[in-house]
Amino acid sequence: MTSQERRRGGRRPTAEVHAAAVSAAGDLLFEQGIEAISHERVAMRAGVSKTTLYKWWPTTGAMAAAAYLHRSEPALELPESGSFVDDLLVQMRGFVALVTEPSAGRAVRGIIAAGQTDEAAREAFLEGYVRPRRRLTRAAFDRARERQEIRADADFDAFIDQLWGAAYFRLLVEPRAVTREYGDTLVRQAFAGVAPTEAREEG
Amino acid sequence: MTSQERRRGGRRPTAEVHAAAVSAAGDLLFEQGIEAISHERVAMRAGVSKTTLYKWWPTTGAMAAAAYLHRSEPALELPESGSFVDDLLVQMRGFVALVTEPSAGRAVRGIIAAGQTDEAAREAFLEGYVRPRRRLTRAAFDRARERQEIRADADFDAFIDQLWGAAYFRLLVEPRAVTREYGDTLVRQAFAGVAPTEAREEG
Repeated sequence: MTSQERRRGGRRPTAEVHAAAVSAAGDLLFEQGIEAISHERVAMRAGVSKTTLYKWWPTTGAMAAAAYLHRSEPALELPESGSFVDDLLVQMRGFVALVTEPSAGRAVRGIIAAGQTDEAAREAFLEGYVRPRRRLTRAAFDRARERQEIRADADFDAFIDQLWGAAYFRLLVEPRAVTREYGDTLVRQAFAGVAPTEAREEG
Repeated sequence: MTSQERRRGGRRPTAEVHAAAVSAAGDLLFEQGIEAISHERVAMRAGVSKTTLYKWWPTTGAMAAAAYLHRSEPALELPESGSFVDDLLVQMRGFVALVTEPSAGRAVRGIIAAGQTDEAAREAFLEGYVRPRRRLTRAAFDRARERQEIRADADFDAFIDQLWGAAYFRLLVEPRAVTREYGDTLVRQAFAGVAPTEAREEG
């Protein structure tokens, strides 16, 4: 909380202020695209001081990444049914449903594009979106390996890119090709690449 | 050839004019990035009329895609040794060597980024780069399937994205993670996802 907010009475807890800012940035991102996001506008919409926003997110790219993570989290949840491949299918279908909404597709494509000329925006997307999501999947991947759904020498970084790198890249170059069927095939084939040979023999 | 060129004597064959234009666009792209490419500048550098350039490439994105395809072709050749996985390893190492050169990495990242706000640029990259390269790999994939290196029900679109979508996406979000070792793992794991079960049992 900044001194400005304290002078106003300091009634709003930090978590609430943060949530209001993330939500306002998400609205701008999904309604108007990444170019609509600025510290000024988010401050106005959320009733938060610009100083506070700069403290949390030094760049608009960082704000956009946080907003996208927040907005996409419910759609991209990874369930835990006991079958990793089934859980990934649910997650991938959530992704396809999300990004085939034009506003969400445009949002994430804009964030990735911004990162190609703005190093801070790229770093923000990596640290504020890609890595937190990879950590969640990594934990599920490790549990699946313990259950021997995945073979011991499978590579996690390659696997995650063969799911999400593949899906996002297709979204960038050929968005209309991102369909539920395509997503399902990505999951099944990536999974075949890391499954134990024994499991595949049974199938 | 435009009437302007014919008036000059028309000595240069179309193929030569085209090659000069692609080469000039490639120089601009690799030296200064996609934002340096314009019909005006390429016309000046290549000694080609702007009219001719517009006929071949209606947008700068289309010129950039053609220039990148031309520049990257030698580095991204797919050999044909009789082992598809070995050929892909060679090709992927060529990719890693190419894009870890800052000028080439910046060139392709700039082209993909431009495509997120400029539909014509995206279409140009898709039609002028992604699809021609996919067609070449598709033919090799089909031959590998005939040799039973790949199982009958393997999906080509998912496979190509699990190699190249994965690699390009990693380049976009975390360029320093694109290493020879990472590329090799991508190839081996993508290949495991499409290999016949019997082949993997032997390995």
